[in-house]
Amino acid sequence: MNPLDPKEFRRQGHMIIDFLADYYQNIGKYPVLSQVEPGYLKNLMPEFAPLSPEPIETILQDLQQHIVPGITHWQSPNYFAYFPSSGSTAGFAGEMLSTGFNLVGFNWVSSPAATELESIVMDWLGQMLNLPKAFLFSGSGGGVLLGTTCEAILVTLVAARDKMLSQIGRESICELVVYVSDQTHCAVQKAAHIIGIHPKNIRVIKTIKSTSFTLSPESLSSTIQTDVQNGLVPCYLCVTVGTTSTTAIDPLGPLCMVAKKYGMWVHVDAAYAGSVCVCPEFRHFIDGIENANSFSFNAHKWFLTNLDCCCLWVKDPASVIKSLSTHTVYLENSATDSKRVVDYKDWQITLSRRFRALKLWLVLKSYGVVNLRNFLRSHVEMAKTFEGLVKRDKRFEIFVPRNLAVVCFRLLPSAVAKISNGGSKTEDVAKISNGGSKTENVAKISNGGIKLEDVANGINRRLLDSINGSGTVYMTHAVVGGVFVIRCAIGATLTHTTHVIMAWKTVQEHADAVLNY
Amino acid sequence: MNPLDPKEFRRQGHMIIDFLADYYQNIGKYPVLSQVEPGYLKNLMPEFAPLSPEPIETILQDLQQHIVPGITHWQSPNYFAYFPSSGSTAGFAGEMLSTGFNLVGFNWVSSPAATELESIVMDWLGQMLNLPKAFLFSGSGGGVLLGTTCEAILVTLVAARDKMLSQIGRESICELVVYVSDQTHCAVQKAAHIIGIHPKNIRVIKTIKSTSFTLSPESLSSTIQTDVQNGLVPCYLCVTVGTTSTTAIDPLGPLCMVAKKYGMWVHVDAAYAGSVCVCPEFRHFIDGIENANSFSFNAHKWFLTNLDCCCLWVKDPASVIKSLSTHTVYLENSATDSKRVVDYKDWQITLSRRFRALKLWLVLKSYGVVNLRNFLRSHVEMAKTFEGLVKRDKRFEIFVPRNLAVVCFRLLPSAVAKISNGGSKTEDVAKISNGGSKTENVAKISNGGIKLEDVANGINRRLLDSINGSGTVYMTHAVVGGVFVIRCAIGATLTHTTHVIMAWKTVQEHADAVLNY
Repeated sequence: MNPLDPKEFRRQGHMIIDFLADYYQNIGKYPVLSQVEPGYLKNLMPEFAPLSPEPIETILQDLQQHIVPGITHWQSPNYFAYFPSSGSTAGFAGEMLSTGFNLVGFNWVSSPAATELESIVMDWLGQMLNLPKAFLFSGSGGGVLLGTTCEAILVTLVAARDKMLSQIGRESICELVVYVSDQTHCAVQKAAHIIGIHPKNIRVIKTIKSTSFTLSPESLSSTIQTDVQNGLVPCYLCVTVGTTSTTAIDPLGPLCMVAKKYGMWVHVDAAYAGSVCVCPEFRHFIDGIENANSFSFNAHKWFLTNLDCCCLWVKDPASVIKSLSTHTVYLENSATDSKRVVDYKDWQITLSRRFRALKLWLVLKSYGVVNLRNFLRSHVEMAKTFEGLVKRDKRFEIFVPRNLAVVCFRLLPSAVAKISNGGSKTEDVAKISNGGSKTENVAKISNGGIKLEDVANGINRRLLDSINGSGTVYMTHAVVGGVFVIRCAIGATLTHTTHVIMAWKTVQEHADAVLNY
Repeated sequence: MNPLDPKEFRRQGHMIIDFLADYYQNIGKYPVLSQVEPGYLKNLMPEFAPLSPEPIETILQDLQQHIVPGITHWQSPNYFAYFPSSGSTAGFAGEMLSTGFNLVGFNWVSSPAATELESIVMDWLGQMLNLPKAFLFSGSGGGVLLGTTCEAILVTLVAARDKMLSQIGRESICELVVYVSDQTHCAVQKAAHIIGIHPKNIRVIKTIKSTSFTLSPESLSSTIQTDVQNGLVPCYLCVTVGTTSTTAIDPLGPLCMVAKKYGMWVHVDAAYAGSVCVCPEFRHFIDGIENANSFSFNAHKWFLTNLDCCCLWVKDPASVIKSLSTHTVYLENSATDSKRVVDYKDWQITLSRRFRALKLWLVLKSYGVVNLRNFLRSHVEMAKTFEGLVKRDKRFEIFVPRNLAVVCFRLLPSAVAKISNGGSKTEDVAKISNGGSKTENVAKISNGGIKLEDVANGINRRLLDSINGSGTVYMTHAVVGGVFVIRCAIGATLTHTTHVIMAWKTVQEHADAVLNY
């Protein structure tokens, strides 16, 4: 047994490449959202691991027959759910090389190229984003590649907490307050919980439709003032550039001004929208970044870099290192002692780390800045096309202004009202919105117990289920301001305008069916 | 620009496979430890990301010319540093498939196969380890794949903290105490810091040579008693099966008995040694596991599964989920509502997650249980061979008993003493141990200011630097009980007995040179 025999590695490697190339070739044939039932795989798999080896040919058959049907095809051109998981040949090649070298780059000496390429690529990318020098190694800051935004938030939260506790004393941990909006990613609340912020000290500030569900500097300011009056200590603010539900862009500049007064750490979570800020015409989304402390985006979302790859820049790496560094004898080495190197283990939660920089390096070199920008723009253009199609169908509305390549839309209550007013039986409306047929619901509607908005929510939910159940396309939903909206997130690498137009046709067909139910 | 064009994907994919197959073929030709200087890459790379695309051919040339020299070759058969990073064709193939599908399996619905295969594989592996049913899905527990042990520790620490705080109140966070030994991985102290354990409440219990640097149940018990008397609350104990420095095996059974009295969470960190417990003859290392709360090991260390892949089992998944679950509207779905599925996002720190189960599935199927056991055994046999060689050279000693495939050895103080007693000039001893030649050091030695043990430490350090500077092999060090030892960690996939014998010859040659300096 030689598990790294070059000849066998080559043979099997080529087989896997062909398997995946065929997969991409045929990906449009699969239902985008897997249609399996919970527990489907258990009956298809043996109860115990095999005692004897199986040939790769058998394993790939097994994969095709049993695993692929249980996969939701994030690389499908008809994938419009959540946010994209943006793969590419270059991103894949980079990950292969990283997996092949299989090195553990926790500090510089464990593999100097892993650290140095990461620092270089992070400065390249920082320059593309026109980040202030203060965030770059060529200035006084620096960047690091993590797995996900959740880690970026945890890293910066710990640094912010410790910075504040070093002033007010560790015993005051229960006085620290973290600020988010009701549109901020749940990662912040989870990370705040993990680092020991008292649950009652996480402020979730309400957003409203008239300001497109962005965090209001005035609301933030008044919330902080109340906390300070109550003897609490403002610690961390997360500003979102491109929220998950609707890609809302929080007003970074004014929010930083509020936070600055209280010496809080401001993190800018641009998980989704950060990528597109490499285009000059979208760079204004992060105007004001010079007053933030840290900034992150996911290159695996919309930057052709296969999962996982989160880019985090911090203005003051020392504060992160202070919180996260470890000193163990068995990792001591003269390079670290010389203080001439970066040891990335001190910039992250874990010790071990993959050579993630390779894939970002391959993406940047393989496509080049100009093409990357144009590629991102093409998704925004496709979203405009989709938006235009929605607007032309009077049964629908665009629920919030489109900022980038996500369109949030829904069947209008007025379209739904037609059903309840004679387009269909009242009873049916109740069925649709509740998925049941109890007469008590009908009574509720006639007595005003169920509002038209609720009925609309129910029907839009039913519409989305109907669309996704078809397997033709996959979209997901959000609920903002109490309203259920369907999100069409454009950005899968294989998506072209034709897919977007087909997606809209699918929506219309299912709307016809649902409304005439 | 079509970054996922199947034809181009196929062409480039095959090129990368050939690149890596050639790399494995020639890996013995590279210096194992990279010999570059800090900052070497900056001058070789342009200051800005390229505006235009570069062909893959150019990129691979660049990689070979500039990146490969900066890589420390963890896959080299002459790699004996830290712990192995155990790659294989199957592990690589699994990671390729996962990267190719590029799905984000945060919950069941986002890709059912990713979740279900993970649960199945974790039960397979748990059965191979003969874990009690209480840790398996087929019992009342369950397993999850994380990136690293650091995450496993963080996850279990948060669960343990919250379990305790739910009894004594969140405000009591500063009273919680975490227990480790001075041989426990630094990940525990780092994680404890992250979750807000007061720095003064992390107990680092001293270990001694006579008990092979294992954590003493008596020391643990008396430490806890003192804390309890002082009104503190014991919360979490990390027991290590295979410590980083010397692969010491903490006495799991008796330690659990102590912890049980106080209702503490016991986590078993078997990052390195867990793999080999699939062999019945080594299973006794985790006897007593039935009284622990959680158990983890790194399949990427010594189980042919490319980085990263940490396997964590917990007895009470509900306690982890209670601490780490998130509820957001945009992730709501009927499968989750049905409570018939696992949503792994609630078992980990981050939301996004890769399809890691694929590579473990491929490893288990490609090699089979019997071969995997034999492969691990072969490394233990090679370590016995190395140990035998060390023992035959009277200048050396095996510093602590070898448990598995790591040998901790050093030049004996008596061998070093020969130099200072006439084998060489006293002045040189000072040079060797201090790396300098100040006469004040010579004076110190003659006056007893530098102890022979310190001189021995200095010379062993010099020996290791000399070995690693040659590029022929790469080993690392530990300092235990004040003694500097060289670690020879056997387990790189390509290592055969011949490499181990050559490694020992290299050590001897450099010892000759250092001692005759």
